[in-house]
Amino acid sequence: MSDERPIGVFDSGLGGLTVVRQLIRCLPHENIVYFGDTGRVPYGNRSRETIQKYALQDEDFLMRQGVKLIIAACGTVSSMAPETGDRLPVPFFEVVSHAVKAALKATRNGRIGVLGTAATVASEAHKRQILALEPSAQVIANACPLFVPLVEDGIIERDDPVVCEMTRRYLQPLVEAGVDTVILGCTHYPILRDSIADYLGANVVLIDSGAATAEAVRDALQSQGLCNSGHSTGMHRLCISDRVSSFARIASLLLGEPVMAGQIERVDMDLL
Amino acid sequence: MSDERPIGVFDSGLGGLTVVRQLIRCLPHENIVYFGDTGRVPYGNRSRETIQKYALQDEDFLMRQGVKLIIAACGTVSSMAPETGDRLPVPFFEVVSHAVKAALKATRNGRIGVLGTAATVASEAHKRQILALEPSAQVIANACPLFVPLVEDGIIERDDPVVCEMTRRYLQPLVEAGVDTVILGCTHYPILRDSIADYLGANVVLIDSGAATAEAVRDALQSQGLCNSGHSTGMHRLCISDRVSSFARIASLLLGEPVMAGQIERVDMDLL
Repeated sequence: MSDERPIGVFDSGLGGLTVVRQLIRCLPHENIVYFGDTGRVPYGNRSRETIQKYALQDEDFLMRQGVKLIIAACGTVSSMAPETGDRLPVPFFEVVSHAVKAALKATRNGRIGVLGTAATVASEAHKRQILALEPSAQVIANACPLFVPLVEDGIIERDDPVVCEMTRRYLQPLVEAGVDTVILGCTHYPILRDSIADYLGANVVLIDSGAATAEAVRDALQSQGLCNSGHSTGMHRLCISDRVSSFARIASLLLGEPVMAGQIERVDMDLL
Repeated sequence: MSDERPIGVFDSGLGGLTVVRQLIRCLPHENIVYFGDTGRVPYGNRSRETIQKYALQDEDFLMRQGVKLIIAACGTVSSMAPETGDRLPVPFFEVVSHAVKAALKATRNGRIGVLGTAATVASEAHKRQILALEPSAQVIANACPLFVPLVEDGIIERDDPVVCEMTRRYLQPLVEAGVDTVILGCTHYPILRDSIADYLGANVVLIDSGAATAEAVRDALQSQGLCNSGHSTGMHRLCISDRVSSFARIASLLLGEPVMAGQIERVDMDLL
C-alpha cells in the first residue's frame, strides 16, 4: 500500500527549506508541499497570541493541500506554539523535541549548548525539554541574532572574517562552559555549520534540528504504514505568502539546489 | 493662534524613532504621535501592493489620532508608495525627497552616494529624484542589509571590528567612485553614523534623511501657520501593532532617550 499524499512543511519564511533538504535526503520518494509565510516573516518578535494565530492558519493551509503529516519547521512555532498541532487529524512534528533527543543521545558530559534566535532562546523550550528528560544535564543557550541576516545577505564563507568574529562572540560562552554537544536551533544555521564547527573543534557534536526531525519523520511514516512506496522522485511544491526580493537566490542556498522564480506559488494572505 | 494637534509619524517598525528624535530637536513644543507597525515589520521585502495597502492603513490610523501633518519615516514607503499620501487632507512628508534636496545642496562634485536597505536601493527612488533635479549628477547606491540587524543587536560601537568591516564592504564602491556626499537612506543608519563617517573621511558630507525631513517640516509648519506656539515640551505618544522583544532597549537607542515599556500603546492590527 502506498500513500502518495504529500508531507506538509511550514515556516515563517524560507529557512524551513533546510528541513525540506533533509527530508529529501531521508525520503527521496515523498511528495512535499512547503509553505513559507514570507508575507508575515519574522515570527520571532511577535507576541505569543500572534504566533499561535499564524501557526493555526499555516497548518490549516497545509491541511487543505491534503497532506498526510505536518512539520512545523519554524523554530518560533516549535518553541512557543507546538500545541497548535495537537488538534490536527494527521501526525504533527516540530523541530525542538527531536533535536533535544538527538543531543541527549550524543552528549557524554551532559553539557549541551543551544543556539537560536532571540525568541527561541528566550522561550527556553530546549532547556525545559532537556531537563525534563535528563534533570542532571546542563544547558547553555545563546541567541545569535545576526546569523539569519548574514545567511540572507550571502555572507556565509567558512573563513569570512565577519562570520568568524560573530561565531566567536556567540559561541564563546558555550565553549567556556565546556559543552560537548550543540543544537543548531534555527533553520538558517546549518548554512554556517562549517564555521561553527571550526570554532567549536572536532570534539563537539553539532545537532542539525532539521536532520534529526527528518529522521524521526521517516521512522514514523514507516511504522505507521504511511510511506509513498513509489520509486519516482517526489514532487516538491513551494508556496509563499508574499513575493520576496532575492527569493530564488536565498531559497536555492537554503534548499541546496537551484530554485527558479517560476517554481513558486503565491498564496493570498487574506485567504489564510 | 496655536495648533496643538500632533504631528503623525509612521514607520514599518521602530527605525522611524530616529526621525522623531530629529523632530523633537527641531520642534520641541510639538506634540507627536508615532505609529510603528511592528506586527508587520519589515516592509522592505513585501510586494508593492502589500506596501501600498499597509501605508494606507498606517496613514488612516494616524488620521484617526487627529494629526495635522503626516510623515512617512519608512524608507520603503517613501521609495515605493509615496503616492499614498496624496489623498490625505493634511500635509504629507516622506524621507526621500528632502534628503535628495539636502544632498544636491551639499555636493560640490555632483557625485552622490546612497545607502539603504535592499528594497530602497532597488527602487532607485533617490537616483530618479536626484537626476530629475540635476541630470548631470552621478548616483552610486549600495544596499547595506546587515546594518539594521547590527543596530538591533546593539553592535554599534564606533570601533567594533564587525561594524568597521561591514562599513568597509558596503562603502568601498562609493569611495572608489569619488562621492563627496552620502545619503543615509534608512532610519537605522544614523546610529552607525560615526563609523560611517570615520571610513568616509572628513571631506564627505553625510545627509541624515530624518534631519533633512524634520527641517522641511519645521519650515512648512511655520509658513502654513500650523505651529504649536505653546512653551511646554510636546507630548509624545508611541503606538505599536505588536509587542517586540527588546522593545525598550531598541526604542531608547533609536530615540536617543529612555523609553519604558509602560509608555507604549498597543494597537490591534485587525483594527488597522
